[in-house]
Amino acid sequence: MSDVQNQLLKGSFKLTRVGVRDVKKPVVVRRPGRDVTLIVTFDLFVDLPAQLKGSHMSRNLEVLSRIIDDAVREQVSSLEDLGVLICQELLSRHEYATCSEVLMSSDYFLERGMGNGTTSLERYILKASATSVRGGATKKSIGVEVTGMTACPCAMEEVRSLRGVSPEDTSASITHNQRNITSVRLEVPMELQLEADTLIEIVEKCLSSPTYEILKRADEARVVMNAHANPKFVEDVVRDVLSEILIKFRDLPDDVKVSVKSESYESIHKHNAYAERDTTMGELRA
Amino acid sequence: MSDVQNQLLKGSFKLTRVGVRDVKKPVVVRRPGRDVTLIVTFDLFVDLPAQLKGSHMSRNLEVLSRIIDDAVREQVSSLEDLGVLICQELLSRHEYATCSEVLMSSDYFLERGMGNGTTSLERYILKASATSVRGGATKKSIGVEVTGMTACPCAMEEVRSLRGVSPEDTSASITHNQRNITSVRLEVPMELQLEADTLIEIVEKCLSSPTYEILKRADEARVVMNAHANPKFVEDVVRDVLSEILIKFRDLPDDVKVSVKSESYESIHKHNAYAERDTTMGELRA
Amino acid sequence: MSDVQNQLLKGSFKLTRVGVRDVKKPVVVRRPGRDVTLIVTFDLFVDLPAQLKGSHMSRNLEVLSRIIDDAVREQVSSLEDLGVLICQELLSRHEYATCSEVLMSSDYFLERGMGNGTTSLERYILKASATSVRGGATKKSIGVEVTGMTACPCAMEEVRSLRGVSPEDTSASITHNQRNITSVRLEVPMELQLEADTLIEIVEKCLSSPTYEILKRADEARVVMNAHANPKFVEDVVRDVLSEILIKFRDLPDDVKVSVKSESYESIHKHNAYAERDTTMGELRA
Amino acid sequence: MSDVQNQLLKGSFKLTRVGVRDVKKPVVVRRPGRDVTLIVTFDLFVDLPAQLKGSHMSRNLEVLSRIIDDAVREQVSSLEDLGVLICQELLSRHEYATCSEVLMSSDYFLERGMGNGTTSLERYILKASATSVRGGATKKSIGVEVTGMTACPCAMEEVRSLRGVSPEDTSASITHNQRNITSVRLEVPMELQLEADTLIEIVEKCLSSPTYEILKRADEARVVMNAHANPKFVEDVVRDVLSEILIKFRDLPDDVKVSVKSESYESIHKHNAYAERDTTMGELRA
Repeated sequence: MSDVQNQLLKGSFKLTRVGVRDVKKPVVVRRPGRDVTLIVTFDLFVDLPAQLKGSHMSRNLEVLSRIIDDAVREQVSSLEDLGVLICQELLSRHEYATCSEVLMSSDYFLERGMGNGTTSLERYILKASATSVRGGATKKSIGVEVTGMTACPCAMEEVRSLRGVSPEDTSASITHNQRNITSVRLEVPMELQLEADTLIEIVEKCLSSPTYEILKRADEARVVMNAHANPKFVEDVVRDVLSEILIKFRDLPDDVKVSVKSESYESIHKHNAYAERDTTMGELRA
Repeated sequence: MSDVQNQLLKGSFKLTRVGVRDVKKPVVVRRPGRDVTLIVTFDLFVDLPAQLKGSHMSRNLEVLSRIIDDAVREQVSSLEDLGVLICQELLSRHEYATCSEVLMSSDYFLERGMGNGTTSLERYILKASATSVRGGATKKSIGVEVTGMTACPCAMEEVRSLRGVSPEDTSASITHNQRNITSVRLEVPMELQLEADTLIEIVEKCLSSPTYEILKRADEARVVMNAHANPKFVEDVVRDVLSEILIKFRDLPDDVKVSVKSESYESIHKHNAYAERDTTMGELRA
Repeated sequence: MSDVQNQLLKGSFKLTRVGVRDVKKPVVVRRPGRDVTLIVTFDLFVDLPAQLKGSHMSRNLEVLSRIIDDAVREQVSSLEDLGVLICQELLSRHEYATCSEVLMSSDYFLERGMGNGTTSLERYILKASATSVRGGATKKSIGVEVTGMTACPCAMEEVRSLRGVSPEDTSASITHNQRNITSVRLEVPMELQLEADTLIEIVEKCLSSPTYEILKRADEARVVMNAHANPKFVEDVVRDVLSEILIKFRDLPDDVKVSVKSESYESIHKHNAYAERDTTMGELRA
Repeated sequence: MSDVQNQLLKGSFKLTRVGVRDVKKPVVVRRPGRDVTLIVTFDLFVDLPAQLKGSHMSRNLEVLSRIIDDAVREQVSSLEDLGVLICQELLSRHEYATCSEVLMSSDYFLERGMGNGTTSLERYILKASATSVRGGATKKSIGVEVTGMTACPCAMEEVRSLRGVSPEDTSASITHNQRNITSVRLEVPMELQLEADTLIEIVEKCLSSPTYEILKRADEARVVMNAHANPKFVEDVVRDVLSEILIKFRDLPDDVKVSVKSESYESIHKHNAYAERDTTMGELRA
């Protein structure tokens, strides 16, 4: 029988990414102090040389299935480390490929409280990825997506001006505030260890306020007052996160890639406000 | 050749809805004072008797295509009236069906301003539907989905209390505010004419504030002050819309169905607050 | 301090549903032979009488949090049973409400194989709900959403006809086949126990073929041949599922609600084919 | 009054993209032989220097509104040309920015038929963008997203083998086929004119078969036979589109960027098969 994928082509084109998308699997990872079940959506790719007709797609699923099973036994501690293992095994099984790539996304939950005894399980999104080049570097990225709150400094100033509030009066004025989603992504060599929880803490510190699922009335008022005491543009959120990253991850080498995005689902508009910086640790330090 | 759909079955089950979903087509309707192109997503169904193996799906698309072409010539004035025509033609072409149903959804735009000369084209969603029973009634529904702003009355009161604001001081305090989507749907007999623009006006009047794509600074402050002068729970929005409907559509008969839903994408939570009333004009009057 | 939600209104409207939507939480349920972590999206509602200004939204989150914690200890065996507990507690905490409702949705995974030793973890969606009336009945619904494959019987017949295949030749001809999503929902009194896995088995049996994440070449061919040996319209899928339900759940009382929907993401069209039956066990038996 | 956005910062970070996302507007463009109303979703960005606190977001909306109004008068012939005008005006209004970017997406419809007199309005997606560097180049991209059908060559070969079909028998065997979405994007200097309709024609030619909303039975059979006579992996679709682009756009310079992606919503799996090539005209010619 002819093996269709292995047919040799003449004069065709190599392909950058060939593989499978939207594969969902439960994964158990060992997070700090606990085992966590993540329902992860995977995309898996390798490249394909010009002379080969097809990539062996089923191998991607076999690799994924086996590595996830092994991970349970060997206690993988993060999505990105799982991604590294998958990338390396993809290169091993696709002998014709020169590089491999894995993208992962999952809901993630952390216990959070306002310091008064009440806590709730808050939701976040983990985004991780890994890439591997045959005979070259393996890299991994650690990312988080955090939902919080921004209060607009510009409208606050405008309202104060319209109301004739004196500059000596420093109390927060009304303004528009809204749901904001801020994401951070760091790409590091496979040897380095970063902690997603640290990225989440950084973002929550840089928003006008973190948000909580359970808020009794007095707590609700405190979140509102906290947010109005820290009015932030999306520009401010991105820059403050960059500052914190420079401090918390000061030991990271210059070539580490950093991406920070912040999007506010504006309460006064039907569209969103957005700010983004794509950079490296080296550029940030310059 | 055997005609598969027309095969007769013994002892099988009738089906409630058989048809096609997610069909997109451009439609031109004559709105007040202008012709408007809508990109409409259609679902079309008829029922199927127990003894017939299959519905003739392609007839749904033929009906849709022909009625839309005719509508351009005959100047249909609304999505719901287009739905009525489609429903009647579905019954005509599916001779075995006892009822037909059409669901329609489309972006929709209206010029809006704050009265200072600046206007912008604001976006809304039209939701219309029609149902027809062979030898019985044809009904149509007119619906809108409006994005606006709610400011929370409870957190405002809490902040005033925590700050020790005196009851005599009636100025609005800070609170959380957020993007809100409120929808209204009225189901009426095919002879009655309602205007979607009226429903949009009602909802915008009942939110803490409508929102605008273009806001210069002073306008932005005015929207913020307006919203804080009208703090609303989602419960308030739904009830205020119901009150307005009772007034504006006072001539509608008792059996007209009314549905109002309001969802706030809370700035202080990661989840949404929601209120809804499904009722009839008769119940509202009781 | 004034309690805004508890303000009494005159001449206002009662509301059908007030609560929170899109709350995500991890839940551990005891499935047959194993504990399973589900990441569940919840909507929680109660009704609101006309004279009360607001529902106490934060109670919904407190109820959810506490019941989920208790569920871990007390080993709840299904989403729908968790829903029953939540509904009852919602009525207990919202003393003004006459009814409560919970909607739940979650990814779900089962080991599946073609009988040749290879298995893979296949994904499904669980949809459960519960409603409770104060002083009345508590009901729960069990639902599943299954992705599989349909092959069209009509195009198969047409191709045979165009190619002049003789009626004696019963081998399957080419046709269009595609991804199909079929869902089933049964609503039963809280005392009855149904098993979601049984609903999944029923649907997979009624599609042209179930699908698998890992398929080596010979397996892939067998799935293709199996699907072409069982060509099905969406109408056929719905009716066959109804037949199976009548057999497997023959002990269910007449007033149990049954809903079956099947949607094929047609390969030869850009739209979907759809069939649905909403009924009761009693009607099905008639 | 202080102007918050214009505040000067010390030691802060420049930002890569600041602006608005998810702005929807109707746009009229002059397509070959007809005026077409597109409902376009826009993202608009400029960069922000390190010393400026905020970007003037409302200017983005003013620019958009004015250019769209002008476009009606001046008869812009494509989304990408509209993008070029917007990019240049963004730089003019944001005097502090060094670059601007616009992303656009819209449903799009073309009359299609199988040559037998019946036609239907088929839907596609236009994706266009433009970028402008102050004192440098303005570039635009033209993209389309086309829904069609792929039939798997590998499963076809496997079935033939399992059934013992002789190599002399060249008739198409059964296989799995499915909905496929293939997209193409070309980035060219602003002076060059490409036609989106040409890109759509190329993709439809390279799929196993284009698809149609209205198909009578014999037409349906012909689409099925056509697809099975042209079995294609996603890899084949991408490569065939690249070949066609090399021929049709042979006059494009070497530095023109080309991106082709093909995703099959597999009927035999719950995940998708995917292939992609990111390249330049120069690399393709090498």
